[in-house]
Amino acid sequence: MTEIPAVASLNTDSPRLVAGGITKDTQLCLSLSGRPGNTGTRFHNYLYDALELNYVYKAFTTDDIQQAIAGVRGLQIRGAAISMPWKEDVIALVDEMDPSAEVIESVNTIVNTDGHLKAYNTDYLAIVSLLRSNQLDPALETVVLGSGGMAKATVAALRDEGFTHVTVVARNTTTGPALADKYGFGYAPQLGSLTPQLIINCTPIGMEGGPEAADLPVPDAAVQAAEVVFDVVPRPTITPLLARAQELEKIIITGAEVMSLQALEQFVLYTGIRPEPELVARATAFSRAV
Amino acid sequence: MTEIPAVASLNTDSPRLVAGGITKDTQLCLSLSGRPGNTGTRFHNYLYDALELNYVYKAFTTDDIQQAIAGVRGLQIRGAAISMPWKEDVIALVDEMDPSAEVIESVNTIVNTDGHLKAYNTDYLAIVSLLRSNQLDPALETVVLGSGGMAKATVAALRDEGFTHVTVVARNTTTGPALADKYGFGYAPQLGSLTPQLIINCTPIGMEGGPEAADLPVPDAAVQAAEVVFDVVPRPTITPLLARAQELEKIIITGAEVMSLQALEQFVLYTGIRPEPELVARATAFSRAV
Repeated sequence: MTEIPAVASLNTDSPRLVAGGITKDTQLCLSLSGRPGNTGTRFHNYLYDALELNYVYKAFTTDDIQQAIAGVRGLQIRGAAISMPWKEDVIALVDEMDPSAEVIESVNTIVNTDGHLKAYNTDYLAIVSLLRSNQLDPALETVVLGSGGMAKATVAALRDEGFTHVTVVARNTTTGPALADKYGFGYAPQLGSLTPQLIINCTPIGMEGGPEAADLPVPDAAVQAAEVVFDVVPRPTITPLLARAQELEKIIITGAEVMSLQALEQFVLYTGIRPEPELVARATAFSRAV
Repeated sequence: MTEIPAVASLNTDSPRLVAGGITKDTQLCLSLSGRPGNTGTRFHNYLYDALELNYVYKAFTTDDIQQAIAGVRGLQIRGAAISMPWKEDVIALVDEMDPSAEVIESVNTIVNTDGHLKAYNTDYLAIVSLLRSNQLDPALETVVLGSGGMAKATVAALRDEGFTHVTVVARNTTTGPALADKYGFGYAPQLGSLTPQLIINCTPIGMEGGPEAADLPVPDAAVQAAEVVFDVVPRPTITPLLARAQELEKIIITGAEVMSLQALEQFVLYTGIRPEPELVARATAFSRAV
C-alpha cells in the first residue's frame, strides 16, 4: 500500500490536465535511439501543447529495431525519429525512401500514413535550408571535417546546392575518401595547408561531455583565414570553434540551428502544420533548457 | 501556416505541464482493442497523476496484432490491455501464461518485464474477488447467462471458488454446452423453469447503445425468485436487470465493479503499487465520467 497524496488540485473537469489529456484519439510520435535524450520530447510536446494538437511525443530505446518498426506499423504510430545506431538499418524496413534519405542512404525520420512508411532525412533538409538562408556562395572553398552520418548529409547538401570546391578532411582513410569520391569531391586525411573560406565541422570535437570538448578541430590559423564557420555539433550552442570564430567576427552557423530545423521539419511531416518562427524559437529554447 | 495561439499560460519552468511531463524515462502502458474507448486511458492516467508516477497510458487499435505485440517488445512497453477480438490470438505471442489466463484460455493483460511477456486475465481475477467480497455461498443455485469471453471467466471463477450448482444458459448450442462441459456444469438453451438464487448476466442484453439496451435477459419472475443478481455489462452501471433487482431489494453486483477491479489489478501488475480504495473509487468515477 502506498500513501495517497492530496489530489485536491487535480481538476477532474478538465481531462487536459490528466496525463496531458491523452485519449484514444491522441497520435503518438516517438524517437528511437541507442541513448535517448529529452530534447526531441520537449521540443515536440511544447509545440503540441502550444498549438493544442492531440499528439504526444516520447523517446524510446530498443534492442530490436525490427520489432520496434513492426510496432510503429502495428500500433499505427504516426512518426518516428531514428537516431544512431539504426539510421541505415531501417532502410530495409520502410516502404518508400524520400530523396532526402535516399541520397545519403541514411534515415532519421519515418512517417506512417495509413500503414505506408516513408523515410526522410531531415538533417539533410536542415543543412540545405541553412546553406540557403545564409546565402552562402557555392563557389566558396569549402572543407567538411569528418566522414560520419552528419558529414554524409552535409556533403550531399553541398553537392545538391551546387558547391564545387569541396574537400572532405577525415582521419578515417576508408570512409573519408569513399564519401569524397561518391560526390566527386576532394579528400585529405588532414587539413594541412588548406585555408578554406567555409569550414564545416562534422566531427565530435568540441561536443559537450566528449573527450575533446575543449578542443578546436582545426588550427587557429584556419579559423583566422575562414569567412564562415559552421559547426554541426549540437551542444553546446557555442563550441570552442564557434567561440573563436565569433571573436574573429566570422559568420557562424550553429549545430543548435541544425537540430532545431531538423526537428521542425519532422514536426511539419508529422502534423502538416508549419508553426511561426517565433513559436519555433520558444520550443527550441524550451527543448534545450535541460 | 497556422495561427499561433497565446502560450503565455505555458509554464516553461514546469515540464510536468507540457504534454503531461513526458520524458524518455516515462513508461508507456497501452490497450489494444478493436473499438478503443477512453475509460482505461482515463482510469490509469488519473492514478498515475495522483500518485505522481512516471507512466502514461493510451488506447490503441491495430489491424495486425502480431506486429502490435512485436511493438510491445521492441518499444519496451510495460503493459498492454488486450480486448476483443484478440484475447485468444495473443496466447501464441506471449512467453508465459498466468493461471488466470490459462484456465480460461483468454488473455486481457500482458506485462512486459525486461522483454519477458506474461499474460493474465484480470476479468477472471475481478470476478473471483467479487464472489469473495460479497461472501456468496457456493451452494447457491446459479445460472450464468451467455457463453462468450466474460462467461468463460465467470464460469471458471465459479468452479474455482467451489460453486457446485451452476447452469450455463446460452442460445448458442455450440459454445454453450462446450463451456458447461469443460467445467462439469449443466447447460440449457433457455432459462425455462429454472429459478436460480444467483443470476449472472454475461450477455450484452441491457448494454448501453446496444440493440437490447432496454431489455431484461430473464423473465421478471426469475428476478423475483433470485437472491443475488450480478450483471457484468459494464455500462450503464445500473442496467434494466439491476434496476429491477434493486426495486425488489435483491443484492446486486455491477459490471462497473468488475471493470474497476480488473483495471485496478492491471494497474497493480504494471506499477507494483496497490492504491487505497478511496483513490480507486475516485479514479473509477473519473474514468466513467465521459
